[in-house]
Amino acid sequence: MSMVGLRRVVEPAGVLPQAAWRLDASPEIGPDETRIRVQRLNLDAASYRQLAEKHAHNGDAIRAEVLEIVGTRGKMHNPVTGSGGMLIGVVEEVGPESPLPVKPGDRVATLVSLTLTPLRITDGLAGWDGLSEQVPAEGTAILFGRSIVGVLPDDLPPELALAVYDVCGAPALTDRVVRGHHKWHGQASVEAGTATDRVTVAVLGGAGKSGSLTLAAARRAGARTKAVVVNEAERDALVAAGLADEVAIADARNPVAVAEAVGEPADVTVVCVDVPGCEHGAILATANGGTVIFFSMATSFPAAALGAEGLAADVTMLIGNGYVPGHAEFAVDLLRQVPAVRALFEARIAAD
Amino acid sequence: MSMVGLRRVVEPAGVLPQAAWRLDASPEIGPDETRIRVQRLNLDAASYRQLAEKHAHNGDAIRAEVLEIVGTRGKMHNPVTGSGGMLIGVVEEVGPESPLPVKPGDRVATLVSLTLTPLRITDGLAGWDGLSEQVPAEGTAILFGRSIVGVLPDDLPPELALAVYDVCGAPALTDRVVRGHHKWHGQASVEAGTATDRVTVAVLGGAGKSGSLTLAAARRAGARTKAVVVNEAERDALVAAGLADEVAIADARNPVAVAEAVGEPADVTVVCVDVPGCEHGAILATANGGTVIFFSMATSFPAAALGAEGLAADVTMLIGNGYVPGHAEFAVDLLRQVPAVRALFEARIAAD
Repeated sequence: MSMVGLRRVVEPAGVLPQAAWRLDASPEIGPDETRIRVQRLNLDAASYRQLAEKHAHNGDAIRAEVLEIVGTRGKMHNPVTGSGGMLIGVVEEVGPESPLPVKPGDRVATLVSLTLTPLRITDGLAGWDGLSEQVPAEGTAILFGRSIVGVLPDDLPPELALAVYDVCGAPALTDRVVRGHHKWHGQASVEAGTATDRVTVAVLGGAGKSGSLTLAAARRAGARTKAVVVNEAERDALVAAGLADEVAIADARNPVAVAEAVGEPADVTVVCVDVPGCEHGAILATANGGTVIFFSMATSFPAAALGAEGLAADVTMLIGNGYVPGHAEFAVDLLRQVPAVRALFEARIAAD
Repeated sequence: MSMVGLRRVVEPAGVLPQAAWRLDASPEIGPDETRIRVQRLNLDAASYRQLAEKHAHNGDAIRAEVLEIVGTRGKMHNPVTGSGGMLIGVVEEVGPESPLPVKPGDRVATLVSLTLTPLRITDGLAGWDGLSEQVPAEGTAILFGRSIVGVLPDDLPPELALAVYDVCGAPALTDRVVRGHHKWHGQASVEAGTATDRVTVAVLGGAGKSGSLTLAAARRAGARTKAVVVNEAERDALVAAGLADEVAIADARNPVAVAEAVGEPADVTVVCVDVPGCEHGAILATANGGTVIFFSMATSFPAAALGAEGLAADVTMLIGNGYVPGHAEFAVDLLRQVPAVRALFEARIAAD
């Protein structure tokens, strides 16, 4: 239990670090903790937008409020949006009981939210103009025993690695689910190698970052892949990339259109579209006995639960867990091995 | 696709019946439809409460608004709460292409929501005083090909069967998940019959209706069961009923308390507590490689997804699907075979 950082919670007592109003961010580590020397914060987009709008894009005022939040709460946890972000730094000290696979000197990105990461800033954010989500910073951060951290690969620009880490749960969980479907539903046909019996995976939002990695993961796990995208530009890009066996256009919020675009219902449907209202289309596009994986934070729990019941749909519905052991390495490996995914990521980063 | 009732949608065109503002409730059935002669509506508790408060518990005004909603929308879909309810009636006509396992004369309960059920009322609700969720009614309702309907058992009072049907998804899905865990994680130990290797199931809210059925289902599937309840009265009742191997008291919204109450993390944790904020406790109480099944409509999708990530918890998180084939019969069978569950249900119904 100590592994989840309870000793860092100052108030209210007894809650988990994410729920806490204030954490103890002191740099001395406990036996299961790890200290990071901070180099850069990446603020969550929603958090930065709120701060920028509140302060009319005045960089000094934005910087002052970030410093005040971190000083008051011991973490960069925006009290209005409830969101945080992530950080990059160098491992400074690892407690003797920490299970994290890092050592002093490793350059890492933290893959748990800043909303639960004890953080101390020591340079007054002097190197930041307050006008971007990317915040150069000096200070220290603490990782608990139960945490997630990715060592930044030597062969990839940090921006690219971070963009991959940001969505790395989706391809890893898709891989696990597709391989599970082979075992449960199609062992005989997999062995027979008959294409018509292959597990089919439909990805809503297949042209995005999580969507393209998910398509690549599904194919590598042996699935036949169908992508649903929102317009002709995305379709053409995805067809050119060759990441999916089929690509169709539909508004993911329109259940009838999604089901028609997918055609023969999929064994596994993965929702990578970050807009509300995609639940019923995903359910309707999935075969009985199949699985829907929701990876959009805009997913409504009641809409999914009541939607499946209303459609008498015998589908397994998964809340996309952002953590699967080895997910960061898995996604980076996919990016290295599938040039089309890397090209797509690089284009997205250049456009941002 | 016709099986989901698209032909009944009047406006807006092209959406699913639940999302529609207005349905065509005419009594002539299509080839895959079934017509029910309505005897009673059970309004959703939240819907009735909203109507009663709006009209200061004036029965005539409440009745008038229900009639207006059904007349306007072609379904009893409360536009404020978004909820419906269910109905009881007798099967009148079954289309030649309907896959539903019913025949004319069967007394049935509809297990899909009234929010998507075409409904016509012909008696002006003359037999209802407007002062209860139970609405005697004459009229007709339509079930689509893809629908869920339960024939009312001869040996149980209708109130008891309805209370069971209302929560029957939870025990059926728990049964499926527990048996899956045997196969994947413990086949050898199950065969060896070693108690310490049995799948453990923790049920948050174990003393309630869905919770008690879930405990009974988990035990019948071979699991060792732990119940977490909110106070001593519930604990004493559950201990007396003998439905769980262990019973502990904790506030399900307090993650640390829940984890301590469960002790050794469970292989499967089922959330049957209908209050917000139970996600992190359920995740923390579950072993790595385990499964959390969320059956509460108060579940927050982002809280579950971000919570698992923040805790670096490798758990499978399921959105509790209210539909599993055969779920109604499964739950009624459990009630018949486990007298303690039946006694608990009867006590709850008497108290309502």
